[in-house]
Amino acid sequence: MVDFRSDNVKGAAPEILAALAEANTGTAAPYGDDALTARLQDRFREVFETDCTVFPVATGTAANVLGLSVMTPSYGAIYCHKDSHINVDECGAPELYSGGAKLVALPGADAKLSAAQLAEVLAEGGAGVVHHVQPAAISLTQASEAGTVYRVEEVAAIAEVARAHGLGLQMDGARFANALVTLGCSPAEATWKAGVDALAFGGTKNGCFCAEAVVVFRPELAATLPYRRKRGGHLFSKLRFLSAQLEAYLKDDLWLRLARHANGRARDLAEGLAALPGVEILHPVEANEIFARLPQGLAERLRGQGFTFYDWAAAGPGAVRLITAFDSKPEEVATFLAAARAGLGVEAVAEAEAEPA
Amino acid sequence: MVDFRSDNVKGAAPEILAALAEANTGTAAPYGDDALTARLQDRFREVFETDCTVFPVATGTAANVLGLSVMTPSYGAIYCHKDSHINVDECGAPELYSGGAKLVALPGADAKLSAAQLAEVLAEGGAGVVHHVQPAAISLTQASEAGTVYRVEEVAAIAEVARAHGLGLQMDGARFANALVTLGCSPAEATWKAGVDALAFGGTKNGCFCAEAVVVFRPELAATLPYRRKRGGHLFSKLRFLSAQLEAYLKDDLWLRLARHANGRARDLAEGLAALPGVEILHPVEANEIFARLPQGLAERLRGQGFTFYDWAAAGPGAVRLITAFDSKPEEVATFLAAARAGLGVEAVAEAEAEPA
Amino acid sequence: MVDFRSDNVKGAAPEILAALAEANTGTAAPYGDDALTARLQDRFREVFETDCTVFPVATGTAANVLGLSVMTPSYGAIYCHKDSHINVDECGAPELYSGGAKLVALPGADAKLSAAQLAEVLAEGGAGVVHHVQPAAISLTQASEAGTVYRVEEVAAIAEVARAHGLGLQMDGARFANALVTLGCSPAEATWKAGVDALAFGGTKNGCFCAEAVVVFRPELAATLPYRRKRGGHLFSKLRFLSAQLEAYLKDDLWLRLARHANGRARDLAEGLAALPGVEILHPVEANEIFARLPQGLAERLRGQGFTFYDWAAAGPGAVRLITAFDSKPEEVATFLAAARAGLGVEAVAEAEAEPA
Amino acid sequence: MVDFRSDNVKGAAPEILAALAEANTGTAAPYGDDALTARLQDRFREVFETDCTVFPVATGTAANVLGLSVMTPSYGAIYCHKDSHINVDECGAPELYSGGAKLVALPGADAKLSAAQLAEVLAEGGAGVVHHVQPAAISLTQASEAGTVYRVEEVAAIAEVARAHGLGLQMDGARFANALVTLGCSPAEATWKAGVDALAFGGTKNGCFCAEAVVVFRPELAATLPYRRKRGGHLFSKLRFLSAQLEAYLKDDLWLRLARHANGRARDLAEGLAALPGVEILHPVEANEIFARLPQGLAERLRGQGFTFYDWAAAGPGAVRLITAFDSKPEEVATFLAAARAGLGVEAVAEAEAEPA
Repeated sequence: MVDFRSDNVKGAAPEILAALAEANTGTAAPYGDDALTARLQDRFREVFETDCTVFPVATGTAANVLGLSVMTPSYGAIYCHKDSHINVDECGAPELYSGGAKLVALPGADAKLSAAQLAEVLAEGGAGVVHHVQPAAISLTQASEAGTVYRVEEVAAIAEVARAHGLGLQMDGARFANALVTLGCSPAEATWKAGVDALAFGGTKNGCFCAEAVVVFRPELAATLPYRRKRGGHLFSKLRFLSAQLEAYLKDDLWLRLARHANGRARDLAEGLAALPGVEILHPVEANEIFARLPQGLAERLRGQGFTFYDWAAAGPGAVRLITAFDSKPEEVATFLAAARAGLGVEAVAEAEAEPA
Repeated sequence: MVDFRSDNVKGAAPEILAALAEANTGTAAPYGDDALTARLQDRFREVFETDCTVFPVATGTAANVLGLSVMTPSYGAIYCHKDSHINVDECGAPELYSGGAKLVALPGADAKLSAAQLAEVLAEGGAGVVHHVQPAAISLTQASEAGTVYRVEEVAAIAEVARAHGLGLQMDGARFANALVTLGCSPAEATWKAGVDALAFGGTKNGCFCAEAVVVFRPELAATLPYRRKRGGHLFSKLRFLSAQLEAYLKDDLWLRLARHANGRARDLAEGLAALPGVEILHPVEANEIFARLPQGLAERLRGQGFTFYDWAAAGPGAVRLITAFDSKPEEVATFLAAARAGLGVEAVAEAEAEPA
Repeated sequence: MVDFRSDNVKGAAPEILAALAEANTGTAAPYGDDALTARLQDRFREVFETDCTVFPVATGTAANVLGLSVMTPSYGAIYCHKDSHINVDECGAPELYSGGAKLVALPGADAKLSAAQLAEVLAEGGAGVVHHVQPAAISLTQASEAGTVYRVEEVAAIAEVARAHGLGLQMDGARFANALVTLGCSPAEATWKAGVDALAFGGTKNGCFCAEAVVVFRPELAATLPYRRKRGGHLFSKLRFLSAQLEAYLKDDLWLRLARHANGRARDLAEGLAALPGVEILHPVEANEIFARLPQGLAERLRGQGFTFYDWAAAGPGAVRLITAFDSKPEEVATFLAAARAGLGVEAVAEAEAEPA
Repeated sequence: MVDFRSDNVKGAAPEILAALAEANTGTAAPYGDDALTARLQDRFREVFETDCTVFPVATGTAANVLGLSVMTPSYGAIYCHKDSHINVDECGAPELYSGGAKLVALPGADAKLSAAQLAEVLAEGGAGVVHHVQPAAISLTQASEAGTVYRVEEVAAIAEVARAHGLGLQMDGARFANALVTLGCSPAEATWKAGVDALAFGGTKNGCFCAEAVVVFRPELAATLPYRRKRGGHLFSKLRFLSAQLEAYLKDDLWLRLARHANGRARDLAEGLAALPGVEILHPVEANEIFARLPQGLAERLRGQGFTFYDWAAAGPGAVRLITAFDSKPEEVATFLAAARAGLGVEAVAEAEAEPA
C-alpha cells in the first residue's frame, strides 16, 4: 500500500531503532541526569553553533507549547497564522500551558505570515492598554502548514518586528529538517541568527518514534522551562531513550538525509502531478507536503487502487494533501503517478512523450 | 555496578524492545486510530474483565493527572497522602490539569490513608459551603510511596467513603504490577471491583521504555479525557509505539512475571538486611521498595564499593531507599548483602550460621 | 462640560444612592445570606417571569465570564463577534475563568452575528475531533458594540443553532436595558424565551454605582456558579449593598425609564448629526451609542469648546463614538448640535429651516 | 439585636456613605483614570511614607490573590498558616489567580507562623528540584485568623527568611487597621519597613461598603498587576466610587479611630468574659476578635435572648467566636456581659464585687 496520508503514519528509521536498542543497557540516572542526555546538549550546541538549551520531549504539541509558555504571560497574546497547528490542531494546548493566553489568528497566503502584516497588527496591538491582552509572542511554522518555507530573510524581518515590540519569536519546527534542506543554510542561520528565540525541533515526523526538542536560544527563557515541562507531565523518567533517538537523528546528518529524501519524493510527485491535465498544485512545494486539486473522480479512483491520502476540505472541493516521508520509495511515487495518469486516460500519451526518440 | 537507586534507572525488557521493532513496519493511522491500539483496548478489557477505556500515555505524571482531571473541577479538592507522588513530586501537575484544584495532604502510617481517617476528614470537608474548595477525589498510591500495599478491603472501604460523599477514586499505579502480585488477586478485584474509578497503570518502572495508561472504569469519566490528553500534549502521533509496548507488557503475563521478579529480589534483600545487626527496616516490604536505617558508616562503605542507592532524609538520619527492578539479578542482591555483612564485620559469623550442620 | 465619552463616566442615579443609604442600617448575614438578597431573587423571577437564579456581582466582566464559565470547558470554544467586549476588552478574562478556552472571533456587520453564519461555522467546528477545541458557547452582545440591537427573532434563530450543536447561549447585557426598551418586548421574551441560557444583566452603565447580575435560566448551569464566583473573588461579604442597588434599579421600572431616557437622547443626537452636511452615521442608532464620521476638523473644534467624546480609530479616520446616559440632558444634546452646526458654518441655514413658517 | 457574628454583618460608617454621595457628581474618566483615584495614590504614599502603588478592589479575596499572583508562578508554592483565609475560605482563589500554585499549609499557635518554622520548612523546600513546586511566597494574616497580631519584629524575622530564599512576602490585612492600632506603630513600620512586599489593605470589615486595596511596595511587582486585575474582572468602570470610600477611610485617621473603637469593645468584652467562672479565652485578644469556650448551655441561653455570634467548631466543643466592629456600642457589650453573668447565675456576686466599698 502506498500511503501519503502523513509522515506520521510511518515508523522509525532503522538507525533510530538501533540507537534505542544500544541505549538499552546498563542503568542511568533518571529524569535527564544521564550521560547520554548531557552529551545531547553538547551535540545540539555543535549543530546550532551556540550555547542553546535543549529539552527533549515526546510530542510536537509539548515542544510548541513549552517554548511558548516561557515567553507568554497568562494575559498575553500569541500571533500566529490562522491555519497554524497551535491554533487549530492542539485542542487549546497553548492556552493550557500559558495559563489562558489568547492566540491571535492571522491570515496569510501559503500559510505564512509577513513582517509587514505583523508590524501593522502590532501597531494596534494594545500594548500597555489594560483592557487588551498584551502582545507577547509570534509563532511561525517552518515548514508551514501549506508545505511552504519561510526564507531566512523573511524570518529575520519578522524577528525584527518582534524585537521592536518586545515579543518573543517561537518556531514550530515539526518539519524543521524539511525546511532546512530546502533553505540550504545552517541550522544557526535558520533560527537564532535570524532572531528565533525558541524552536520546537521535530524528530517524530522525520524518522523518530517519538522525539522532539525544545531548543531555547536565550538563557533567561530556559530558566523556568524545566518546571513547566515537569508540571506538564513531559519529563520522562527514562529520558535517555528520547535523547538516544535525537542523538542518532543528528548523527552523521541522518536528519538532513532523511528530510532531503522526503522532500525529493515530494518534488517528484508534485512535478508528476503538475504535468497532468486538470491538476492544480495549490501551494509551492517546498518541503514534503503537496496540496493539489484533482480532477473530479481521480481521488476516488486512486483510493480504489489502494493509494491513501487525505482530502483537504479547507482548500475547497477536490483538494487533497499528499505527504511524503523519510522512507517513501521512488517506486511508490512512480506507481502513484502512473495510476493517476491511467485514471485520467493520458497514459498512452504520457508514455509516448516520456519515450526517447 | 549494582544499582538500587530506582526502577527507573533501568532500561526496557527485551520483549518490549522486540515489540517495538516488530511494530516498526508498514504504516498506520496516527493519533491512536491504528489497529494495534484498537487491539490494546480489547486486551485491557480482557485483563480487567470489564468495559474500561484505555488511554496510553508516556509518563506516570500524565497518567495520574489526566485521571484526576476528569473527576475534579477547578474548585475541587483532591485528598491524598502527604508523601504521595502527586503531592510532592509532580511540580504541581494535578493543579495544572485540574485548572487549579487543591490537594489536601493527609498523614498516614506507611504512606497509606485509611477509610476511617478519610471519613473523619470528609465529615468536615466543607461540601456545599461556598468558601471552601469542594471535595472531589481521593487518590491512593498502589504500591505506596513507602513500598506498602493497600489490601483490597482497605481500598474498598475507602471507596465506600468516596461514594458516600460523591467523590471519585483515583489510583496511582506506577507500581501497580508490584502491588498486584503481592495481593494475589485479579486486576479487576484490585481496582474497579473495589471501587476504583480511574487507574494510572504503570509500565515504565516495570520494564517499558515509556508506557503508562489511564484506565477509566466509568464511561462518563472517559468522555472528556481525549480532549484533555490532547490539550496536555500527551496524544502521540505515532501512538502505536506506546500501544506496542503495553501489548507486549500484558502478553503472556509478562508484566506480572517482571513484577514478581522485582518483588522477590526486594524480599531477599530485605530479609538479608533485617538479619544484620543495627539495621532497621522502616516499612513492611510489600512490593519492590525497601526503606531501611543502616548503622553509621555502612551506606558510605557500600557506595565506596560501587553500590548505588538513595539516602532518604525524610525518614531521618541513616535512612536509605533500595529499589529492585524487573531485571535485578539474585547475585546483585547477594553481592550487596555480602558487602553489607563485611561492612559490619559480621561476615564470619553469618557464614558460619548459614552453613548446614 | 458635556461628556459623551461613555455611560460609565457618570455616577449613580439618586434612587440608587438612596437605596444604599437605606440599606445601611442594622446588621445582616454576609455573603448573600441576607433578606435583601433573598428578596432580589424573587424580584428577578418576577421581572423575568421564570425560575431563574441571580448572582449579583460588581463588574460586567465578572458577569460575562462567570456566565460563560458554566457552559465552557477548558477545551471549549466560545463563538463571539470579533469586536465583542469579551474578545477585545477583558484582557483575557474569559480565558481565565474557563481555564483556557478559545474565543473564536467572527466578523459581522453592525457588530452582530447571524444564525446563518454560525450554522456555517459550526458545521466545520470540529465537534468530536480530538485535535480541535470543542464548540461550547455562543456569546451575543445586546445592545451590541456598535450600538445596534438583535431582534428577538435573530436571537431565537441563533439559539436554535446553538441548541442544534449542543452549545450554550450567553448574552452580554451590559446595555441590556437600552436594548430592551428598543425591542419593546418583555425581559423574558428578550432572553430565555428566545433561548438565552445566561445573561450578564448590566446595571452600572445605566445608573448604578457598581451592580450587575449573572442571571442563569437553566438550573443545571447555576449549580457550580457559586464556587466560581467565590473563587474569582466576586462574592461580596456585604453583598446586600449590591443587591440594594439592583433592587432599586428594578423598582418601579427605574431601569427602563433610565434606559429610555438615554436612548432618547441618543436618537435626538443622531438625528441632529445626520442632518448635518458631511456627517455619516456609521451604524443604526438603536440604543444609546452613536458611531459617526465627522467632517475634518469638527471633532477638534467641538473638543476645543469643552465637549468630550472618543475617537473611534477602528472605524477609520474621522470616526467618533458618542454615548448618552441615563442622565444626559436634552440641553446637552442641543448645545452639542448647535456647536456642531456652528462648527460647520451651517448655523443660519439650519436655524432658518427649523423655524416655523 | 446585639450582633457579634462578624464585622462584615455591619454596614458602612456615615463618613463613607457621605463620601460616596459627594463623589456622585459630574463625570469622570472610567477605569481609574480619574482625579479622585490619582489623589488616592498620593494619599496612600503619604500614609505609608513610600512610593507604593495602590490598586483599589472591592473584595478581600481579590486583594489577597492579586498581591500573591505577582510573586507566584504557576509552579510556585505559597507558605501560609493552615487556618489562613487564603487556604480555607477563598474556594481556591489563590490557585486560580496564580495559574495553579500550591498552598503549603503550616501549623502554628494562635494562627501565626514563625520565622524559625519557616526557615526549617524552607531548608527542605525543594528549591531548584524540578519535581517540586518552587518556593515563591509567604503569606501572613494581620490580624490573624485567631485575632492575634504579629509583632513588627516577628514580621521582620519572617521577611528575612523570605529574602534569604528569594520569596515574596504578602500580608492579608483584611483587619490591618485593627492590628495596626494594637501595634501602635506607623503603617510603614508595620509593612514595608518590616519587609512586606504586598499588602491586602482592608476597608470593608472596618466601615466601608466594599473597599480594599492591593498596596504594592516593590515597583517591579506592580508592573503586571493592572492586567491581572482587569483579567480577574476586578477593574471597576466607575472605580472612583471605590477610591472615594478609601479616601474617606484614610481621611483624618478615620480608619484608625474605627479600628481603635472595635478593638476597645473586644477588649471590654474579653475582660468581662474572662472574669466569668468557666469561661476560657482561647487566644490573646489583640484585635477585634474573641475566641472563647463557654460553659455548657450558655451560648444557647444567650442566643435565646437575641444575641448572635458563631460557634467555632474548629476550636472544640463549646467554642464560640465574637467579633466587635467599628460601631459596636459599649452598651451592647455591657448587655451581653450582663446576660452572660445572669446565664451563669453569678449576677449577685458579680454585682456585689463590682460595687464600691
